[in-house]
Amino acid sequence: MTTAQLVSQINLKKSFLCIGLDVDLEKIPTHLLDLEDPIYEFNKAIIDATHHLCVAYKPNTAFYEAYGIKGWLALEKTIAYINTNYPEIFTIADAKRGDIGNTSTMYAKAFFNDLAFDSVTVAPYMGKDSVEPFLAFRDKHTIMLALTSNEGAFDFQTKKVDDKELYQQVLETSKNWKNSENLMYVVGATKAEYFKEIRKIVPNSFLLVPGVGAQGGNLKDVCKYGLNDNIGLLINSSRGIIYTSKNKDFATAAAKKAEELQSEMSLLLA
Amino acid sequence: MTTAQLVSQINLKKSFLCIGLDVDLEKIPTHLLDLEDPIYEFNKAIIDATHHLCVAYKPNTAFYEAYGIKGWLALEKTIAYINTNYPEIFTIADAKRGDIGNTSTMYAKAFFNDLAFDSVTVAPYMGKDSVEPFLAFRDKHTIMLALTSNEGAFDFQTKKVDDKELYQQVLETSKNWKNSENLMYVVGATKAEYFKEIRKIVPNSFLLVPGVGAQGGNLKDVCKYGLNDNIGLLINSSRGIIYTSKNKDFATAAAKKAEELQSEMSLLLA
Repeated sequence: MTTAQLVSQINLKKSFLCIGLDVDLEKIPTHLLDLEDPIYEFNKAIIDATHHLCVAYKPNTAFYEAYGIKGWLALEKTIAYINTNYPEIFTIADAKRGDIGNTSTMYAKAFFNDLAFDSVTVAPYMGKDSVEPFLAFRDKHTIMLALTSNEGAFDFQTKKVDDKELYQQVLETSKNWKNSENLMYVVGATKAEYFKEIRKIVPNSFLLVPGVGAQGGNLKDVCKYGLNDNIGLLINSSRGIIYTSKNKDFATAAAKKAEELQSEMSLLLA
Repeated sequence: MTTAQLVSQINLKKSFLCIGLDVDLEKIPTHLLDLEDPIYEFNKAIIDATHHLCVAYKPNTAFYEAYGIKGWLALEKTIAYINTNYPEIFTIADAKRGDIGNTSTMYAKAFFNDLAFDSVTVAPYMGKDSVEPFLAFRDKHTIMLALTSNEGAFDFQTKKVDDKELYQQVLETSKNWKNSENLMYVVGATKAEYFKEIRKIVPNSFLLVPGVGAQGGNLKDVCKYGLNDNIGLLINSSRGIIYTSKNKDFATAAAKKAEELQSEMSLLLA
């Protein structure tokens, strides 16, 4: 999917919501556990109930790997279900990968070609030659960690490197990488006060923003400095939406939560 | 496996060799491609031929993920084969994971419990609460990226943070994390001149050292500053060993290469 197509979907739906599909068997409604593939069934119901309210889905691969082969099968089926039924949806493999060149190429093929995700999250620590293999894919997007939503972000990301903080250095440096127009960045909603500085460095890039809801980030604060002429934001909520109810009404309950966020977003876009 | 058990294996075998099982279907002998699970068959033959010459195996998960469900099945079978037949071998899931707390716990369970690896590689960018969930597992080891073997290592890892380089800051900081005795570190062999500084910060930790062979690192240079009283080094070679021959003799050819490295190591240990 191109960035223009993503922006057009945002304008159409008046939503820049991304729903995180972080499926934990201990948290989903128990009546699903008797089915052959509870993870997939859960996702399918959530997707069918919410696809008109969001523009992106983001499965975090950890939650699938934790269930081994069954988990990977559920991930494959989930992404195929989205791509077949809702091809207008932007898909994100939240994998936070990063390795030396030839290995990053293997990861890129796995997520972009085989699983047919539109984008994948990557970690910046190993530098240019660990990220450029992902950037080489046309109409695919590489979403690099910049300033994450967790407490540990302050361990290294905000440390001063030369005259800038490390996350700023990461943003600056990456702009010079080959095909850097395919880059987006992860910036946590819990650090809304940083968005002003970030927009000075990457005014035009899309930012994927986790941490609204369960982690305490505030949507309005993020939008104040984060929105740009192209919208430029994808706000992710996972637990705050998908685990609203543990009963048979879980999908409609999730849709209600998603609709609350979408309404808020439509006002912020107006 | 405890560190003491690993050290005892090193002394017994006079080897601190780790063999990287980075299986690429385009590089393995073509006669294997007709078998039901070529990746597993390749690994099994390599393992049977080399287990007495090395102390560790390190599958890089990218190479398995690239083949989807089939790849994950091959990974599961490979680790089970090692654990069943050669339980004295130290196993490393080279996954370079790292995510916020609850998600890192999912990854840790996947690699330590379900797949029963002795260790997993992680990335430091997200800080303490992304790594401590891995450290919480008893007799399991978390191998954190410090200074990697690729060119991109110079993008951020060697940048000055306060008065130290970032990788030094990573080493220092991580020593204060809970259960930090379960930490090992990745340091590339291509940067042998850095080992002296690294040993000042982590004199007692094990270092996993990729980059000998195919990437150009030199064993003797690494050992000069890297070896400690507890050996403290695991030297990895992947392509340099496993792709020695594309013929039916591939496993014995790999063993010959492994033996060359083991001989060199036994002299360095003497």
